[in-house]
Amino acid sequence: MIIVPKNIVTADSKERILKNHFIEIENGRIISIKKNDEKYFSQNKRKVLRFDKLTLIPGFVQTHIHLCQTLFRGLADDLELLDWLQFKIFPYENAHNKNSLLASVRLGINELLLSGTTTLLDMGTLRHQEVIFEELQKAGMRAIAGKCLIDKNDLFPQFKSDTKSELDEIYQLAKAFHNTSNGRIKYGFAPRFVLSCSEKLLKGSFEMKKDFSGSLYHTHSSENKNELAEVKKRHRKANIEYFDSIGVVDDHSVLAHCIHVDEKETDLLKKKEVRVAHCPSSNLKLGSGIANITKYLMKGISVSLGADGAPCNNNLSIFNEMKLAAFMQKLIHGAKLMDAKTVFKLATIEGAKALHLQNEIGSIEVGKKADLTLLDLTSNTHSLSEEVESIYSNIVYASSGDSVNSVMVEGEWKVLNKKSLLYDQAELNYNSKTELKKLLNRVKK
Amino acid sequence: MIIVPKNIVTADSKERILKNHFIEIENGRIISIKKNDEKYFSQNKRKVLRFDKLTLIPGFVQTHIHLCQTLFRGLADDLELLDWLQFKIFPYENAHNKNSLLASVRLGINELLLSGTTTLLDMGTLRHQEVIFEELQKAGMRAIAGKCLIDKNDLFPQFKSDTKSELDEIYQLAKAFHNTSNGRIKYGFAPRFVLSCSEKLLKGSFEMKKDFSGSLYHTHSSENKNELAEVKKRHRKANIEYFDSIGVVDDHSVLAHCIHVDEKETDLLKKKEVRVAHCPSSNLKLGSGIANITKYLMKGISVSLGADGAPCNNNLSIFNEMKLAAFMQKLIHGAKLMDAKTVFKLATIEGAKALHLQNEIGSIEVGKKADLTLLDLTSNTHSLSEEVESIYSNIVYASSGDSVNSVMVEGEWKVLNKKSLLYDQAELNYNSKTELKKLLNRVKK
Repeated sequence: MIIVPKNIVTADSKERILKNHFIEIENGRIISIKKNDEKYFSQNKRKVLRFDKLTLIPGFVQTHIHLCQTLFRGLADDLELLDWLQFKIFPYENAHNKNSLLASVRLGINELLLSGTTTLLDMGTLRHQEVIFEELQKAGMRAIAGKCLIDKNDLFPQFKSDTKSELDEIYQLAKAFHNTSNGRIKYGFAPRFVLSCSEKLLKGSFEMKKDFSGSLYHTHSSENKNELAEVKKRHRKANIEYFDSIGVVDDHSVLAHCIHVDEKETDLLKKKEVRVAHCPSSNLKLGSGIANITKYLMKGISVSLGADGAPCNNNLSIFNEMKLAAFMQKLIHGAKLMDAKTVFKLATIEGAKALHLQNEIGSIEVGKKADLTLLDLTSNTHSLSEEVESIYSNIVYASSGDSVNSVMVEGEWKVLNKKSLLYDQAELNYNSKTELKKLLNRVKK
Repeated sequence: MIIVPKNIVTADSKERILKNHFIEIENGRIISIKKNDEKYFSQNKRKVLRFDKLTLIPGFVQTHIHLCQTLFRGLADDLELLDWLQFKIFPYENAHNKNSLLASVRLGINELLLSGTTTLLDMGTLRHQEVIFEELQKAGMRAIAGKCLIDKNDLFPQFKSDTKSELDEIYQLAKAFHNTSNGRIKYGFAPRFVLSCSEKLLKGSFEMKKDFSGSLYHTHSSENKNELAEVKKRHRKANIEYFDSIGVVDDHSVLAHCIHVDEKETDLLKKKEVRVAHCPSSNLKLGSGIANITKYLMKGISVSLGADGAPCNNNLSIFNEMKLAAFMQKLIHGAKLMDAKTVFKLATIEGAKALHLQNEIGSIEVGKKADLTLLDLTSNTHSLSEEVESIYSNIVYASSGDSVNSVMVEGEWKVLNKKSLLYDQAELNYNSKTELKKLLNRVKK
């Protein structure tokens, strides 16, 4: 296949923006990026797809998502983290059966693709993790996912399992799903957070990733002040300091949030090459605070973006996260910092680096997988400036998920002309509503 | 005309959400709101329009907009207020001719209507204000607008006029345009901000509004710390304190921003019943800070919302402002505060009250003007919850301008099925690009 867009924002190391160029795709990979050549097009056996008005960018990478929560959007508003978990999210997740979980995952994948995200790091839920993996495989998404681990739960005691069966189960899951779908699916070991995990569980799951090359460790850290007070009370250490003391952070660890982090912990993030997943919408809506990602970036700590779950956002589009990532740092550090180009990179190549997938995705370069998003930057909300550099501003400050026209993962169209090729929205909504009703009835019991 | 939506979010004093109700419109006013009645529909001579999937809400009210800047979107990013004015916005506005100004105003009106805003308080520019009024009239918008007054300008000295001609001109403009278009268009006297206005200009324009009943006074205040330091240096007073000392604040004054406001000034806002126009996107993007609107609301001070200008946002949709108004207050005061319903009211009835239009617009009630917006809350980004109260969450947290389906002002459709009935977007973009190029050439000279 040959794709001829209006321009290409490569997100490569030279930060090139190409006009009058096309890309050629074979077996899901980009095999060439060249100047437009009508003769070449006419002599080529490949299908030539022209998108004269559209801008080609790398598919977005989100490094903290909870697909299992999409069904709960709008049912857990205006609460702080621990109340939100105790009174809403834990009871809801606890009530998931396979059907409701499947409905939630489908809603989430569809929304992510329609808003241009092609790769995600997902935190699953306590039960039925195979449902999430199977749907990710079926959809052809690129994902690192894993069962959410909980063996302690003071907030909602029904919602936990025992340490041994947790560890046994994830070993089986990793064996079944890690590095499947041509390597698109990988396992991410995912203890929920300090307050819901024994040391044995945190360490056991961390150790296990050594058996699955390319797998990650993914948990929440340093999100909410009340949470941190409790961590300190239990372990006499700050959150990341505690993780380090039990040896569960390294360059394959992704910590979501990292808002309330002291200097010593910041140095640990740097030293251990830990990845920070920044989720500004969630952090604001739950009243948690602002992560100082400018500081992290200046120290060379990996920062990437995630929309978190639908009920703490309430939208999975990365466009909201890009805009807020810029706005929040400008609030702290002044308007000049965190410009649009920097933020765009956090949402693409930096996300890929965080997940150790930078050789496969995150930029548009020969040899990389064709995980691509086409944007229409000509709507009524966009800048008319024809300066090439204005493209970043147009993407980060003036766009929304609605600017996404088409999306492919590994050379396969998932969204074309704003239509999902995977799911029928009306059918999804109908099934999901039915499942939500049943789930809410189970919660009441 | 009879409109039969899925439900009606009235924003009336009882905060009613009505299902199975219709509204009847005659001569641009709502003449009845009743339970659906097929017999009544079939016997009625009026056209019955059914929107089974759509939610009817009052048209949004934005109390701080610069239509003249829409053309400059994406050309003034990542700068603080005074640099943004000095190096970008003042030179651009100074280069406006009638054609470029018209292009900018059309882009802005179109974007506002497509994202559901039916009433705006606009700050114009130094020259050609009649262009703005004439286009607002032609579009049938509801607007309070006024020439921007500048008789001092250290930042960009070419961009000013002299006090007497400023005052003469606005008197003529107010005479020509105040209370025209069946009362939809009113005059708003609009000195730019303290640093660009002599005391004589500030007072003269304030006094003039007494000659035009229903007109307003509209300026910027307390936005940026460097600006405030300069105000203090010149006048030895804080911004609002200075306004009060020269007698230019009362219940017909709208102050945009009010971020850096001390206790004494807060008491002045309360005592003088001054209206605060909150513009969170602009305040964040320019690195200005966060207005403590929770405090204002608790004291009973009027707060409403505005997107400000396209180059400091970069989007005129009020959905961004609603979401950020909630998120920023949660950041300061915790997640429970500034819930979705409160924010929705700031964007509708509180906006109407700020402009003294609460008897005409801002809620869906019998006798009020039919300024209405229809939302589709069933897309892939919306909650599936059928609890009636979830509607507010769906509007504030999960929607974007893209959720707007149709819009009318005073009973006349401006947007139908997501299509503008006023403007052709491709034509607008084409003309605007041409005008922008010419303007940028004029700036260079």
